[in-house]
Amino acid sequence: MFAFHVQHQDPQSAARCGVFVTPHGSVLTPAFMPVGTQGTVKGVNVDLLKTTGAQIVLANTYHLTLRPGEDIVHQLGGLHAFTGWQGPILTDSGGFQIFSLARITKVNEQGAIFRSHIDGRLIELSPERAIDIQQTLGSDIAMVLDHVVALPSPPEAVRDACDRSVRWAARCLEHARSDRQVLFAIVQGGLDPDLRIACARQLVSMGFPGYAIGGLSVGEPPADMYRMLDVTCPELPEDRPRYLMGVGTPVDLLEAIRRGVDMFDCVIPTRNGRNALALTDNGPLKMRNLKHQADPRPIDANCPCPACRHHSRGYLRHLFMAGEMLGPILVSVHNLTFYQQLIGEARQAIQQARFDDFFCEKLQRWQSSPEDHG
Amino acid sequence: MFAFHVQHQDPQSAARCGVFVTPHGSVLTPAFMPVGTQGTVKGVNVDLLKTTGAQIVLANTYHLTLRPGEDIVHQLGGLHAFTGWQGPILTDSGGFQIFSLARITKVNEQGAIFRSHIDGRLIELSPERAIDIQQTLGSDIAMVLDHVVALPSPPEAVRDACDRSVRWAARCLEHARSDRQVLFAIVQGGLDPDLRIACARQLVSMGFPGYAIGGLSVGEPPADMYRMLDVTCPELPEDRPRYLMGVGTPVDLLEAIRRGVDMFDCVIPTRNGRNALALTDNGPLKMRNLKHQADPRPIDANCPCPACRHHSRGYLRHLFMAGEMLGPILVSVHNLTFYQQLIGEARQAIQQARFDDFFCEKLQRWQSSPEDHG
Repeated sequence: MFAFHVQHQDPQSAARCGVFVTPHGSVLTPAFMPVGTQGTVKGVNVDLLKTTGAQIVLANTYHLTLRPGEDIVHQLGGLHAFTGWQGPILTDSGGFQIFSLARITKVNEQGAIFRSHIDGRLIELSPERAIDIQQTLGSDIAMVLDHVVALPSPPEAVRDACDRSVRWAARCLEHARSDRQVLFAIVQGGLDPDLRIACARQLVSMGFPGYAIGGLSVGEPPADMYRMLDVTCPELPEDRPRYLMGVGTPVDLLEAIRRGVDMFDCVIPTRNGRNALALTDNGPLKMRNLKHQADPRPIDANCPCPACRHHSRGYLRHLFMAGEMLGPILVSVHNLTFYQQLIGEARQAIQQARFDDFFCEKLQRWQSSPEDHG
Repeated sequence: MFAFHVQHQDPQSAARCGVFVTPHGSVLTPAFMPVGTQGTVKGVNVDLLKTTGAQIVLANTYHLTLRPGEDIVHQLGGLHAFTGWQGPILTDSGGFQIFSLARITKVNEQGAIFRSHIDGRLIELSPERAIDIQQTLGSDIAMVLDHVVALPSPPEAVRDACDRSVRWAARCLEHARSDRQVLFAIVQGGLDPDLRIACARQLVSMGFPGYAIGGLSVGEPPADMYRMLDVTCPELPEDRPRYLMGVGTPVDLLEAIRRGVDMFDCVIPTRNGRNALALTDNGPLKMRNLKHQADPRPIDANCPCPACRHHSRGYLRHLFMAGEMLGPILVSVHNLTFYQQLIGEARQAIQQARFDDFFCEKLQRWQSSPEDHG
């Protein structure tokens, strides 16, 4: 029910394009997954989400186990019936949210004990429990529970968390028994190349159907992240999908694709959309800016999204100034469409064996963008 | 460019159905207009709005003249281009909002002077200015400026406001000079049948293309409103559309259609939607209620809206409990669809000369609704 095929390998870089087959449909890679934290991409209904070009969506195990609870989701038919999204769904394991949102009280070999950020109740999450929850939710792709630490952290702490993540990955793999869900491992190791390589090799030796690179995009300079991709991607098997978690900006996406990454998720398009920042190839537009007040142009005349087909910059500015929900909705949809268009162009460039040219053209265009970012 | 035709007259009541032709398309009557106060039906983009069955939308002159200002709307191509709604649009005159939202400082024969509820600045609105603003906005149907008073008010105050509204209506008609916009008069007169009748007769003698009934649904018992319709509708010409402003509940709509009203606007579907109240023929559902938690049924299995096609009550409850925007969006869309379905059924019943039966069936069904309104 699952398969991954690399269809084109760029001759001048590690970029590749392919297709990932799941029981809920196929995903062309490189792929960008909109983030549906609580079972909805914020403000975007599933019909609109489809128009953005999204093929696969991410949902957060941490949020859904706290509310409404995986048993409720299961009773309502599982994540696909629950959300109304009939395409593939990936769930993360909760490792990152325990690190970023919850108040951790204890992480030991058994698992993590933390307090819910909603109501403060104590919750235990072990590798086995993380798998059980994701199976109950019914996602197509599950992630192993990992131990995420802040960067920078003392080397010993990074190494300990990395080693623990490997042991937890083994327990997750042992515990995962579903032919309707595949399990991806997560390479940790902070910014230490040796740790990253060792972690990748251990995980690869266990034979996962896919590999994620985690613990990045947590505040370190982009160059550090790219360096970690440089050392990690070559360690990962060519015939398995590679997923860079929680990344990133448009530049990050292209830099990572160039290094052989296949999948991404990030809140940037929707978070920026809610904050009135519209992304374009000519630089971002701050939609509250006075200069848009009487501007009849759409955000981007070449964009096929509903915001650009129906509405002027002046109208979108008005919606934000008036505090209307439709502003965040429309600019989120635009930004999601922008990301899908970008990743679609990247796929096409790889198919045409001209990814490197495409990469240089895009970066040059973004760096010389005429918008004053005002 | 404008025309109104009554196509069927119910044999047992004053209910009628027809078609109102405007430069932006035809509207089947009876018609329900969703309220797009600030140039958007809250949370509902124009593509979604079309799926609800809406044929005409209302926009508020008061809100739009304050923000972004009618000149900005005009520079952006007028209300249709501004909002992206290409169908007919009706603008009110601002009279009701001056009464309900603004801090009025003075109403005299010339017009009203009030302070903006947004920034407190002083604004003058005269009958002529109300027409100018609406012409600049570019709506299909404009409303005369009326002087609205609270109910109950001293009889002398009601009479004064009513008489002034008639004089203002004459000034509006004199000032309105557009062949792309028609002007509707507004019958005032509080709860005084004689005043209502006198007001209607004076306005009818001026020959407006349409007549509204205003100053109702401001807190008075429904029976009082129906009584005012009983005396007012017979005074209005049969060949002109009749519009009951700001009304109302599903029962109000049917009671008014039965008395010969053709057009309605009301915030109930969207305001209730944002507050998690879903309307159905079996009674309203409070979507936050615990009993919906694991309920896989849609709000209404017979409803064609996206909320009912894609989502369970359990999912909608989750969205509200999690504070997700999508909850208000989906239940607003459902409620708007419920209103359009209801008014469509009413039209069909009139065409089939069985409106009275339809009316009784609906009221009986609603009164014995099995939902416990929990």
